[in-house]
Amino acid sequence: MRKILVIGIGAGNPDHLTLQAVKALQTVDVFFVLDKGSVKDELVDLRRSIVDEHVTRPYRWLEGRDPERDRNPSDYVATIDAWRRARADVCQGLLASLGPDEVGAFLVWGDPSLYDSTLAILDDLASRGESFEVSVIPGVTSVAALTAGHQVALNQVGRPVQITTGRRLASGWPDGVSDVAVMLDASYSFEGVDPDTWIYWGAYLGMPDEILVAGRVGDVAPRIRELRDEARARKGWIMDTYLLRRT
Amino acid sequence: MRKILVIGIGAGNPDHLTLQAVKALQTVDVFFVLDKGSVKDELVDLRRSIVDEHVTRPYRWLEGRDPERDRNPSDYVATIDAWRRARADVCQGLLASLGPDEVGAFLVWGDPSLYDSTLAILDDLASRGESFEVSVIPGVTSVAALTAGHQVALNQVGRPVQITTGRRLASGWPDGVSDVAVMLDASYSFEGVDPDTWIYWGAYLGMPDEILVAGRVGDVAPRIRELRDEARARKGWIMDTYLLRRT
Repeated sequence: MRKILVIGIGAGNPDHLTLQAVKALQTVDVFFVLDKGSVKDELVDLRRSIVDEHVTRPYRWLEGRDPERDRNPSDYVATIDAWRRARADVCQGLLASLGPDEVGAFLVWGDPSLYDSTLAILDDLASRGESFEVSVIPGVTSVAALTAGHQVALNQVGRPVQITTGRRLASGWPDGVSDVAVMLDASYSFEGVDPDTWIYWGAYLGMPDEILVAGRVGDVAPRIRELRDEARARKGWIMDTYLLRRT
Repeated sequence: MRKILVIGIGAGNPDHLTLQAVKALQTVDVFFVLDKGSVKDELVDLRRSIVDEHVTRPYRWLEGRDPERDRNPSDYVATIDAWRRARADVCQGLLASLGPDEVGAFLVWGDPSLYDSTLAILDDLASRGESFEVSVIPGVTSVAALTAGHQVALNQVGRPVQITTGRRLASGWPDGVSDVAVMLDASYSFEGVDPDTWIYWGAYLGMPDEILVAGRVGDVAPRIRELRDEARARKGWIMDTYLLRRT
């Protein structure tokens, strides 16, 4: 039986890797990597350097080209579904190179459960008749790296916390929560919230380029936009996340 | 300057430890442990075995007795606040043994940001005039261990997810979300939700005793209660969490 490992590698610091992940890496025959094109080469390189550091046995490194995606679709869910199918096509091509008893692996930023499509793609491939066994290795989320950087709790005492997307936040503050962690926000949705909200923002979490800003939204939002634009222009990509807190 | 490390050690599997946590452990002079009494000895032992495995330099192991806590208080937040102050008293006593340039550490299950009181206690000690520098090492949350065990995503495509407590869930399904991760539920609050909700439940996640159950609440809730009661009676303690999903 072919085996696929979905390995959470943490939020950017190579030392976010767990001992379980290190052990799992050492069993892999083929690493599958979806390449997003030149702007995100640094992210591919980071994964490559993690593998180089921890894997001593021979392995194959297989890159597929990630399909382009409409960043402002009119129908978000349908567009994401179509994009996932296109990604599944690419992954099915990669999977063809995995021998009957070999182990393949996807290295996922953060944890595979949070706003990542790998598990959905594998479900799709299974429904196409591909057969393989799946194992998931949990990782440190960017949300945990964010709160660690700021030395704050994600939740207030006994209270709920919501994790959501920039797109969702843009359509209004979620009901029933005072604490909202936001991922995948390319549109500065924090600028639309009550200026008295507190924001804990972080980019390139756990990496040497890490940037942290905390403060009242009304005070620090312009500075976050400026830092974000500057860093993204300089590096060609950005990964950031933030926590909003009403007290 | 005294230094305090708050180290997330993952959800129960000793291999959830990150490389960053392993490196941090090796700098520690004093480990602070709050002992909950005999029933949770196994949890103290697990931390001790992690330290024994990874720390080769001399260290001190200091246990304080965790104050008793009212599990069904009339005023939840006030009771938790009082309990945290009592815990802070105990921790202040432990802290007194830390020399001027020494490093102390708290080992926290899961990640220090999620339903853990260590950071709040340190804030309290700082406000009492204790001076120290804090550093937080993020860890794998029990939520990530749960979804890894079940090989499911925490969120549905582009949708929010709420993390909450059993106590909160008991007062009603949260507004605006289809996916709810529940922690600290000693009262089987999942029994009160729509029986067509899907539940992914897990106990002793990542440990040899791990138990996973998934299914329609209406079908599996009685079995979860039975497994939970049996395991808690046998081991004397239980750590469990679950994800509820409406599709």
